Amino acid sequence: MQPIIILVTPQLGENIGMAARAMLNCGLSHMRLVAPRDGWPNEKGISAASGAFDLMPQIQVFDTTSDAIADCNFIYATSGKLRHMAKPVYTGDAAAADMKERVESGQKVAVLFGAERTGLLNEDLMLGNAFLNFPTNPDFSSLNLSQAVLLVAYEWLKAHDETAPRRYETQEHPPATMKEMEEFMVRLEHEIGTRGFFQSADMRPAVMRNLQTMLRRAEMSAQDIRTFHGIISILIGKKQKP
Amino acid sequence: MQPIIILVTPQLGENIGMAARAMLNCGLSHMRLVAPRDGWPNEKGISAASGAFDLMPQIQVFDTTSDAIADCNFIYATSGKLRHMAKPVYTGDAAAADMKERVESGQKVAVLFGAERTGLLNEDLMLGNAFLNFPTNPDFSSLNLSQAVLLVAYEWLKAHDETAPRRYETQEHPPATMKEMEEFMVRLEHEIGTRGFFQSADMRPAVMRNLQTMLRRAEMSAQDIRTFHGIISILIGKKQKP
Repeated sequence: MQPIIILVTPQLGENIGMAARAMLNCGLSHMRLVAPRDGWPNEKGISAASGAFDLMPQIQVFDTTSDAIADCNFIYATSGKLRHMAKPVYTGDAAAADMKERVESGQKVAVLFGAERTGLLNEDLMLGNAFLNFPTNPDFSSLNLSQAVLLVAYEWLKAHDETAPRRYETQEHPPATMKEMEEFMVRLEHEIGTRGFFQSADMRPAVMRNLQTMLRRAEMSAQDIRTFHGIISILIGKKQKP
Repeated sequence: MQPIIILVTPQLGENIGMAARAMLNCGLSHMRLVAPRDGWPNEKGISAASGAFDLMPQIQVFDTTSDAIADCNFIYATSGKLRHMAKPVYTGDAAAADMKERVESGQKVAVLFGAERTGLLNEDLMLGNAFLNFPTNPDFSSLNLSQAVLLVAYEWLKAHDETAPRRYETQEHPPATMKEMEEFMVRLEHEIGTRGFFQSADMRPAVMRNLQTMLRRAEMSAQDIRTFHGIISILIGKKQKP
């Protein structure tokens, strides 16, 4: 079971649709609506979802928040303004970690979002076991509804994702071997050296060290090195090797 | 200097506006546009920004991506589909950490986003020093443009944010002292005990242990305890203490 996203009295169909798209982007597919202003289904909402609804279980619509959360074990109430209720307030990643633990132990959890203009009202905030709050810019803090849903879904995704933080997508051109690199550097130094590139013998080591540093940082592949051999050959007037 | 968000040939004004709102929500305020389809400024865009543009430096508009990035030192190219270019691919948080380091060392960095329909084309991807990719649902991976901008801005925010992951917003009602708690438990046990709540003496320790567990988990405040004392008093027919 995944966390359920519950939009309480959402006003704009577009936001419902964009919220659904954002959920599914992050692998969440259970959405409930409480008394959507313009009803549901809603043409603008379906259009804004870019096809997400075709891949999600049907949205459930309820008259009251209380009905919508009746079968859930734990509720996170999202809130921009915190109203001095003595309940724990989670950041997005801490909430996702807590949700993950609860879901894995068999609990059904839900996240409540309020209407665009007002956010959750006190009567709905009261129903939450905990608050969920993003530490946005105090001078411009109000997130669009679908954007707030995205952040919750994204943190859920991240809590489960194991993608390497920095990776290479392709193994087509692995870095060259050190021998290929060394041979290239020796040739480069020779070809420029014999043509008078180094105006004094003193310069030579520092210039070569800088070139080595730059070219090794580039993690040149064997193909890159062949290309550079070709470039040197053409510049010195030799035919390129086939 | 903050990272610059560059939208390359964005189609819809709404997305430009929502992207600006998302940026400012997360404290970013430098946006550049490359050849926006419907021109800029654009009425729908300004409306979708919910006032963000009033608090941001003026958006700069360029004819080509190359012009837009000319003064930058390092470019992250966002891409859903990775096109087998041998460049490092960062997740959102790793990219934000890298941006933070670069910005703190005085570099001007920018993040490129492609058009809604296509994402960045190869000619723009080529200009990036690194790729930035969110590991979204492979069956429904395409993020809305403004949502993708939000995730980059949010990771930047998180890289700088020190909000406690789980906190209490209010100190109005700190947990009661252990003495207050203990006196309450003693009274509760007494009042229910003398009225025959424990059907056998054996039950008593287990029932009291469960009650203790629940009530201590609730982190009752001194005020909560006074309220419960009043509830017990009224239930046993005593007047409440003033």
